[in-house]
Amino acid sequence: MKVVALAGGVGGAKLAWGLAQLVPADDLTVIGNTGDDFRHLGLAISPDLDTLMYTLAGIANRATGWGIEGDTWQGMAMIARYGGPTWFQLGDRDLATHLLRSERLAQGETLTAVTAALGRQLGVEAALRPMSDRPAPTRLETDEGTLAFQEWFVGRRWQPVVDRIVLPEPPAPASDEVVAALEAADLVVIAPSNPLVSVAPILHTRPVWELAADRPAVAVSPIVGGRAIRGPAAKLMAELGLEVSPLGVARYYGADLLDGLVLDSADGATAPDIEALGIAALPAATWMRSDEDRVELARIVLDWGRRLG
Amino acid sequence: MKVVALAGGVGGAKLAWGLAQLVPADDLTVIGNTGDDFRHLGLAISPDLDTLMYTLAGIANRATGWGIEGDTWQGMAMIARYGGPTWFQLGDRDLATHLLRSERLAQGETLTAVTAALGRQLGVEAALRPMSDRPAPTRLETDEGTLAFQEWFVGRRWQPVVDRIVLPEPPAPASDEVVAALEAADLVVIAPSNPLVSVAPILHTRPVWELAADRPAVAVSPIVGGRAIRGPAAKLMAELGLEVSPLGVARYYGADLLDGLVLDSADGATAPDIEALGIAALPAATWMRSDEDRVELARIVLDWGRRLG
Repeated sequence: MKVVALAGGVGGAKLAWGLAQLVPADDLTVIGNTGDDFRHLGLAISPDLDTLMYTLAGIANRATGWGIEGDTWQGMAMIARYGGPTWFQLGDRDLATHLLRSERLAQGETLTAVTAALGRQLGVEAALRPMSDRPAPTRLETDEGTLAFQEWFVGRRWQPVVDRIVLPEPPAPASDEVVAALEAADLVVIAPSNPLVSVAPILHTRPVWELAADRPAVAVSPIVGGRAIRGPAAKLMAELGLEVSPLGVARYYGADLLDGLVLDSADGATAPDIEALGIAALPAATWMRSDEDRVELARIVLDWGRRLG
Repeated sequence: MKVVALAGGVGGAKLAWGLAQLVPADDLTVIGNTGDDFRHLGLAISPDLDTLMYTLAGIANRATGWGIEGDTWQGMAMIARYGGPTWFQLGDRDLATHLLRSERLAQGETLTAVTAALGRQLGVEAALRPMSDRPAPTRLETDEGTLAFQEWFVGRRWQPVVDRIVLPEPPAPASDEVVAALEAADLVVIAPSNPLVSVAPILHTRPVWELAADRPAVAVSPIVGGRAIRGPAAKLMAELGLEVSPLGVARYYGADLLDGLVLDSADGATAPDIEALGIAALPAATWMRSDEDRVELARIVLDWGRRLG
């Protein structure tokens, strides 16, 4: 069974890692959101791709969810001493990723090629793909003006109230590799990443939505008990008038796209409302605290997806 | 007395530090060689300026002579893990310098402005100036072909035999700040840096030589007992047919430029031959092992230069 996962950062990376323990590497493609990508200190930074890569490579920092386990901060301390920008934290090892990526992009390689090459060196076996080789920055219209994603997310700790999420128009084209993986997919897994700012930018990349909608597609709700497990998903959904629940997630993705939604057992009572939308609902343990949790959730998603397909 | 020092890396930086202990900051300008500058991993790297800056700031690594005391190597280890280039060592703190310099240059600031701003943050009080704001790369014609300076110096540990040193033609223009400092100088000090690849690129920058020649100018020989205190000065002089001695240094700079040459006491016997060229010769303790040595040599150079001027 060929599986394609659409994923943002931390939560998505955990499920992607679980999938990678169960699906043969040749059959798994993880498509990462690059709507968060930005340039900082002259470097091309891809936060979600890096979180996915580090997590798949088994070197992610488990405490923070981003960055590299055991990384150090000598460079940041020196940048601070120079009075340089410190709002976006760059670990010393992490900087190597940005330096090499930036250098190779500047030499004309695609982000797809660079991501594959860096991942290979770290031992990532599944295909990790950026959604597009073109820049496709997500912008947010907020009560403090229009902000680039990282300005809002890291720079202002996602506090400004969001009126509207602006994805690039016309949409960026998906890479050939992304299109080919989706065309071959037996199952599309939408990871429990932020639907609005992590998954939507991938789906917005043309023609990802159409290809995903044509195939069995299962999402995992990132909303549990009315809250996001992590990050601004609940806050954003509320600000944009969506119900902050698995039902809200199901409505947002819609029955045209989704065949099934895995929701946390704590929200099991909402399953009938989701099914009423024409989307199968499966309550399960979705909170991934351990490696075993990740693998178990991946197993549930794969087994259920196989039956739905 | 307004003093301008021309300096390359390690040896030049030591004397510059000594001078900075004795000369009021407003009266001292250190002009650094940028012929070694190069781009690496997309970063603008200025090895001699950095050694001068770190030394003047009191944070240089004393064991290596270059880099920052106590710097760490997490980024380099990660670059190695990625299979990236490791021939040029970049410490984690040192990387901050290159990142901020590169970013500010990319935003259109001059190297002069960036160097001043970075130095100020580190507490450098004397004026540290790049010889030019234009790239002025030194190239070496060798038995392994034409090499950029760092390819030869670091990449091949200065082993290829040099037939010819190629400085840019037409010469790069000195910055306004360099010209103004030289015009106001009461004494020009040529530090015990490599005459051929550290000092010559500065003198080649127009109109540094003419301005230095018009003023009292004292050099310190980097050759002691037929050997370079450090680095390839002796090897290079021999390969280019120069006598490897203070007399060879005196002949190389010439009486049109130099009023005096400080040579090591170990070479005192050659003083008459140097004076026969029309260049005053002063034997002294030139080997700078300690901070006290640096200050003492600076004091000798300043006192003697004042009398020669």
